[in-house]
Amino acid sequence: MRVHLVHAHPEADSFVAAMRDRAVAAFRARGDEVGVSDLYAMGFDPLLKAADFGERRDPGHLVYALEQRHGWETRTLAPDILAEVDKVLAADVLGFTFPVFWFGVPAILKGWIERVFLSGPFYGGRRIYGRGGLAGKRAFAAFSLGGRPGMFGPGSIHGELEQGMLRHFFQGTLGYVGLSVHRPFAAYHVPYLDAAAREALLDGLEDYLRTLDDQPTFRLPDLADFDERLEPRRR
Amino acid sequence: MRVHLVHAHPEADSFVAAMRDRAVAAFRARGDEVGVSDLYAMGFDPLLKAADFGERRDPGHLVYALEQRHGWETRTLAPDILAEVDKVLAADVLGFTFPVFWFGVPAILKGWIERVFLSGPFYGGRRIYGRGGLAGKRAFAAFSLGGRPGMFGPGSIHGELEQGMLRHFFQGTLGYVGLSVHRPFAAYHVPYLDAAAREALLDGLEDYLRTLDDQPTFRLPDLADFDERLEPRRR
Repeated sequence: MRVHLVHAHPEADSFVAAMRDRAVAAFRARGDEVGVSDLYAMGFDPLLKAADFGERRDPGHLVYALEQRHGWETRTLAPDILAEVDKVLAADVLGFTFPVFWFGVPAILKGWIERVFLSGPFYGGRRIYGRGGLAGKRAFAAFSLGGRPGMFGPGSIHGELEQGMLRHFFQGTLGYVGLSVHRPFAAYHVPYLDAAAREALLDGLEDYLRTLDDQPTFRLPDLADFDERLEPRRR
Repeated sequence: MRVHLVHAHPEADSFVAAMRDRAVAAFRARGDEVGVSDLYAMGFDPLLKAADFGERRDPGHLVYALEQRHGWETRTLAPDILAEVDKVLAADVLGFTFPVFWFGVPAILKGWIERVFLSGPFYGGRRIYGRGGLAGKRAFAAFSLGGRPGMFGPGSIHGELEQGMLRHFFQGTLGYVGLSVHRPFAAYHVPYLDAAAREALLDGLEDYLRTLDDQPTFRLPDLADFDERLEPRRR
């Protein structure tokens, strides 16, 4: 199996970096091939911009998604984008290790998604969710957050985490492009944990990844239930 | 009233830029003071990093939120952060104009939030939601998206927009720091609209802003319902 990890943390010896390293080791122990895009270490540029396109479909006015399609068809996208797209397309499993900031991914990873998840090969029109361009591949995330589990779920202060606050990522981003998305590995309350508790979390992550194939996936919308305008079919 | 707009779009003559300009004009017509942080035009750096701190509480290991508190107390934060924090603190109303990318704000705006919404003056511990540091101020957003209204809401393909896919922003970010958050102005299906339809949307935005004080706000969690661990109180 080919696994590609996308890692986003500014501190090289963070707990999230330890999660990344544990993940690499766990996959290698299974005999999988593992690559890593360490976004801060690579100096990945998170800003989408006109210069992402070597040749413009419309040089006068930038509509990013339309230029993405043109840039992909002509292979004139910026080399840093093409390199990442190729890694994604070559992988069977995409993994993401990051700290949750403001109930989302860090800006550097948000920018990676905006520049790399191309309109055209990744999604477009009714080619979303189960019909998205990455259908057949799987994804998982392992993230840290400051909160405790009791702050999430029905009746809690922040509401549901995975399908509420983080719905934009699991469904709206990973699921949207056709990935089958495993329920994530969440490391709660990380800044307040001692070394033993952190080690126990890393062992938990290793167990999670060893049994990744059996981890449940999110239920995503079925395109068969929606018409050509993506509105619910009347039955 | 002092209004500060944060604008995030890479194209200078985009529809979202027209929304920003219409907003500036609408507030000025009311007699309000208006400032704008145009993030692309400013070259705002969206990457949080160790160099954001002129003086470190812990030079050996970066825990960003803890360094934010220290940097604020000692006024040793990077000047580009301090300048934005001062604009936010001086405003009565914060406005955001942006295209929705991947059911969230553009990376450049996500990075602005990560660097500017400081742990300490903006939030911390139980100082969130109605008790957050920006309590007493208001916020609104005017955004574009490619989808149509029929793709959102109960039973739709993507589910609820404002309190579902965008919950992380309206509740988890703006509401979290104590802002009273108006229901947004959403411009649907923008890439596919002709000039007349776009002009009608801009007129709609002007009406929305002229009556902003009467626009409904999101219901946010009441801290009185939660204990010192932020878990629901038993009654």
